[in-house]
Amino acid sequence: MLPRRRPRALGAAALLLLLLLLLIGFFLFDGRLRGAAALDGDPLAEQGGHNRSDCGPQLPPKCELLHVAIVCAGHNSSREVITLVKSMLFYRKNPLHLHLVTDAVARSILETLFHTWMVPAVRVSFYDAEELKPQVSWIPNKHYSGLYGLMKLVLPGALPSGLARVVVLDTDVTFASDIAELWALFAHFSDKQVIGLVENQSDWYLGNLWKNHRPWPALGRGFNTGVILLQLDRLRRAGWEQMWRVTASRELLTLPATSLADQDIFNAVIKEHPGLVQPLPCIWNVQLSDHTLAERCYSEASDLKVIHWNSPKKLRVKNKHVEFFRNFYLTFMEYDGNLLRRELFGCPSQPQPGADPLQRALAQLDEEDACFEFRQQQLTVHRVHITFLPHEPPPPRPHDVTLVAQLSMDRLQMLEALCRHWPGPMSLALYLTDAEAQQFLRFVEASPVLSARQDVAYHVVYREGPLYPINQLRNVALAQALTPYVFLSDIDFLPAYSLYDYLRASIEQLGLDSRRKAALVVPAFETLHYRFSFPTSKAELLALLDAGALHTFRYHEWPQGHAPTDYTRWREAEAPYRVQWAADYEPYVVVPRDCPRYDPRFVGFGWNKVAHIVELDAQEYEFLVLPEAFTIHLPHAPSLDISRFRSSPTYRDCLQALKDEFHQDLSRHYGAAALKYLTALQQQPRSPA
Amino acid sequence: MLPRRRPRALGAAALLLLLLLLLIGFFLFDGRLRGAAALDGDPLAEQGGHNRSDCGPQLPPKCELLHVAIVCAGHNSSREVITLVKSMLFYRKNPLHLHLVTDAVARSILETLFHTWMVPAVRVSFYDAEELKPQVSWIPNKHYSGLYGLMKLVLPGALPSGLARVVVLDTDVTFASDIAELWALFAHFSDKQVIGLVENQSDWYLGNLWKNHRPWPALGRGFNTGVILLQLDRLRRAGWEQMWRVTASRELLTLPATSLADQDIFNAVIKEHPGLVQPLPCIWNVQLSDHTLAERCYSEASDLKVIHWNSPKKLRVKNKHVEFFRNFYLTFMEYDGNLLRRELFGCPSQPQPGADPLQRALAQLDEEDACFEFRQQQLTVHRVHITFLPHEPPPPRPHDVTLVAQLSMDRLQMLEALCRHWPGPMSLALYLTDAEAQQFLRFVEASPVLSARQDVAYHVVYREGPLYPINQLRNVALAQALTPYVFLSDIDFLPAYSLYDYLRASIEQLGLDSRRKAALVVPAFETLHYRFSFPTSKAELLALLDAGALHTFRYHEWPQGHAPTDYTRWREAEAPYRVQWAADYEPYVVVPRDCPRYDPRFVGFGWNKVAHIVELDAQEYEFLVLPEAFTIHLPHAPSLDISRFRSSPTYRDCLQALKDEFHQDLSRHYGAAALKYLTALQQQPRSPA
Repeated sequence: MLPRRRPRALGAAALLLLLLLLLIGFFLFDGRLRGAAALDGDPLAEQGGHNRSDCGPQLPPKCELLHVAIVCAGHNSSREVITLVKSMLFYRKNPLHLHLVTDAVARSILETLFHTWMVPAVRVSFYDAEELKPQVSWIPNKHYSGLYGLMKLVLPGALPSGLARVVVLDTDVTFASDIAELWALFAHFSDKQVIGLVENQSDWYLGNLWKNHRPWPALGRGFNTGVILLQLDRLRRAGWEQMWRVTASRELLTLPATSLADQDIFNAVIKEHPGLVQPLPCIWNVQLSDHTLAERCYSEASDLKVIHWNSPKKLRVKNKHVEFFRNFYLTFMEYDGNLLRRELFGCPSQPQPGADPLQRALAQLDEEDACFEFRQQQLTVHRVHITFLPHEPPPPRPHDVTLVAQLSMDRLQMLEALCRHWPGPMSLALYLTDAEAQQFLRFVEASPVLSARQDVAYHVVYREGPLYPINQLRNVALAQALTPYVFLSDIDFLPAYSLYDYLRASIEQLGLDSRRKAALVVPAFETLHYRFSFPTSKAELLALLDAGALHTFRYHEWPQGHAPTDYTRWREAEAPYRVQWAADYEPYVVVPRDCPRYDPRFVGFGWNKVAHIVELDAQEYEFLVLPEAFTIHLPHAPSLDISRFRSSPTYRDCLQALKDEFHQDLSRHYGAAALKYLTALQQQPRSPA
Repeated sequence: MLPRRRPRALGAAALLLLLLLLLIGFFLFDGRLRGAAALDGDPLAEQGGHNRSDCGPQLPPKCELLHVAIVCAGHNSSREVITLVKSMLFYRKNPLHLHLVTDAVARSILETLFHTWMVPAVRVSFYDAEELKPQVSWIPNKHYSGLYGLMKLVLPGALPSGLARVVVLDTDVTFASDIAELWALFAHFSDKQVIGLVENQSDWYLGNLWKNHRPWPALGRGFNTGVILLQLDRLRRAGWEQMWRVTASRELLTLPATSLADQDIFNAVIKEHPGLVQPLPCIWNVQLSDHTLAERCYSEASDLKVIHWNSPKKLRVKNKHVEFFRNFYLTFMEYDGNLLRRELFGCPSQPQPGADPLQRALAQLDEEDACFEFRQQQLTVHRVHITFLPHEPPPPRPHDVTLVAQLSMDRLQMLEALCRHWPGPMSLALYLTDAEAQQFLRFVEASPVLSARQDVAYHVVYREGPLYPINQLRNVALAQALTPYVFLSDIDFLPAYSLYDYLRASIEQLGLDSRRKAALVVPAFETLHYRFSFPTSKAELLALLDAGALHTFRYHEWPQGHAPTDYTRWREAEAPYRVQWAADYEPYVVVPRDCPRYDPRFVGFGWNKVAHIVELDAQEYEFLVLPEAFTIHLPHAPSLDISRFRSSPTYRDCLQALKDEFHQDLSRHYGAAALKYLTALQQQPRSPA
């Protein structure tokens, strides 16, 4: 009996042991197996299919810092990358550190953007693409991404040596999920694996697309490098720098150039060393190239994680489901980035440059204060996207003048006319929502007049708050002007056709230089007709004036605004003449670029320009009226702000309060010299602007 | 030896067995334990904390239909619920069936909305709240949700008897995750459990908030009913209808009324039958009431699933993290709902009423066609939200007239003036983005003039496409007019102060009724000055006309548009006189509500009103000019569309093509009678409009 019993017991033990191992095996390796499945069978479908029914890998701990590297160059990629960043921030729940390899243009744009965006728990570091160029410039490349595409190859050397892991993204991907889930896939890497990639969702590397189509070598369909997990520490140890160079040089003996930039080289290296790659589930890089095979992935998957617009056509790519993906992309393209200023609860928040004092100031505001809206608007830091469209800085010229103005959506139709009237450089601030910025982009693209101009810089300031931050907008446009002089105009004005040349000539003749504090006054007029033939000379202008077709600007509502320009004298004048400041004077002037900034406390309607002219006078700028210069205001419906001003006593009282505070600061600043402004203010009737 | 060996082997077996059971136990019951933990210790924190580190319950299979029930009544809740629906649709990956218990107002709003929204894989059923009232009206209730709050109690009886499970939501919750994850929690219910609820995140039910604070009975802190999982089949079997009535009646012997509507009664029942409830993790109903304890939940959790604005203050609730939550709410409030028209890949799509023929038509368009934009815009179905703001239909009066017009954001400032000039009912279509709709809401709330008017109906038509769908907008406003007559106006016009009374008097005097095909012409004038004193009589108007301060409308650019009105005769006229149609005539007219609709093919600028007048003439409406009636156009900058018209030859050609097609349809429809329009067209010069 006994002898029989023992083996049974042991058998039971063995059986249980087996079961136990199976069970543990199932739970621990399930993820791994799925991850590794990428190259056999129909991985595209498989992996998607799985994904719904379990929870995939373990997410990194709350508050762990995740690293992301992106190569970005030029105006258009800088616009594109923002949509990627928005989608990433929308779903992220971890602190992020962005490592941006940029050219000079992208850097200045993105530095300003992130500085003004102030997203909590996001760090940004910049790396100079120029310095990396020599490492890749020897590689002949036919891909539209140019040299910059290739720079992903040198990231292990370019990023801080202490950095062990990074997610590398193309600017044309969009997140549909939390990047932490992608980061978590690092856990699947074996000790030998150093690169995580999704299989290429086209037959490109199979080399059968057309006769004599000869792609670079790859494993099967090869891999797509729009989304890469890089184990940097191991790559460095494995001598990656040598590895890819050797392979690339060898292939280039027989192949003329790379067709898909870095991707060809990554695939060639992987073909040689298959052990390096950890295949990732297809849903982490759903590729919308032409002839994509992606549908096999996403029709099975219940969940898309990352969408990749890897066709040169981008959103115009042909694909029977493109509407779905386009909607998804538009979601983040038009998403109000201000809403991403969300703190991460329960994570120690890194100090935000400038954010904390601002938070305190905002916290101290009294919501019951009648002027609360004004106070809040003054403290609002607007996201700023400088040079939103491609822009060529003007060649340096000693007397050159930039027209400076600001506008919102309802004035777009002024731009073409303005371009016809002003052939010189312009710096324009546009106050837009994220969605409007895209409409603006399409508007410019649709206009031959506008798209022909490379010397007009458009700076988008994103809307936030109920009041129009007019002086903050002017300051943004002013700060971005690159010529020694600026013409401080408003968007409803069309300058004389000759004004640009005339101003530069005058500056030269008057022998002005930036040390001389001169403000050249451009007399302002207005018409009440939408369509009228614009005067081509002072003589024609005077004729229209006498005929009553033109008036001096706001002659009926607000004469003191321009009275000191002395239109009567101007009629006869043949040389510039000096005029004195008087209360409420607000002429349109040409000044050196380093002139005083506008006072940002004036938001909404009223006194915003007046205050600036006071500042000029206080700093002893002399006002010189130019005899041949003129600019004409075109009619438009009253703005919402002016309507509010007229209808709301509170609004008027708040404006008055701002004026009083302005004068207090003025006397604090200029002492007795500022007295005249205060007296002028007291003598003057309480007035609309 | 042997004797010793045996127990050891068995011991090993036992040990392994134990291990095995533990392991299975851990993996299978982990979720359950967490779910059930809600009432001991500090559940708020606990449950959140867990959630990141594992994957929670198994999600329902791809394409499974999920059911959601919501009670919604009145204009404001109908606006609110849309934000909830948007957040739900944004994250959902399953087909949804919405069961909406509504009053008449909410039903007409939401029926139109969903019908025009055309979201794939969303079914909507309506249930009449009026019919359910008697079942709950006997309960005295102090909560701001009124009777409607209580209706959640009767859902098991009200919803289809075949429906076994439903997620019940308050209109003031926002999703931050896929509702399928919530649905999955049904899997945790034991056989006895029928209601899934999150613990109440305030101390209300502890009854210690103030002296003599006596809440309804509850288990500990009780549960919040903003998010409920209902096992309908079991509730019906368990005799729920009796159960809650008995409890409620008994409590009402000692308590005067419910303070928190249905929530008090649910809690009283649960207190009595604790076995009915399945506690849900706190993150599924993060409650932002005043003095909320929610922070204990969300500061631990790395992931919020549902946010509940359960304070009467809603977004203005005081809470140190309210900015975070507000941003989250605004995300969906301002989200472009058109982008949610996303199909679910790999799920059999239910037929969409009207959607399929539309899709075919759109698919047949030729993207290379120069007029592609026009074709596409004509086929676009815009989401429509009728009576966006509270509205009182005018009392039925035989001769009453509704002013009908359409506008976009850039004309908001006209509304106050319009209200002063037109004291009668108005039906206005507004072409807005979702974000602009919210700005519009704030604009009206900030205006005493506008918020005082209950007889102005605002219908939001959501923006989509590059061209202004002017005639589709007019048709929406026209379809919503409730009086027997309509005054078809434009937003830039201010009618004579007396016009509303004068029109009703004229209709009466002329003995018109809806059978008589008469179009009363209101002569149109224009001023070029923003500020001018509006004439209070025909005499004053004529004086201004002679003084050149007024002109007949578009006298300079487009005289034929109003020439047939015969202004010379009008000066002298003392009785209505009949005029004949002529080419390009586009007067402003008063017609019976059942007049022909505007031709939606005319999008953007040009000929949209002209075509409508042709239609009236073709249907033998007689044009009667009213001697005392007038309306005046105020100046504004040219619209983007008119600018495009003037600058783009293609635009003009496309408009010409539309005109030609219109005339073809006309002759097809009216035969020889329509010949005169064609001849007129051929004789006339190619003209701006």
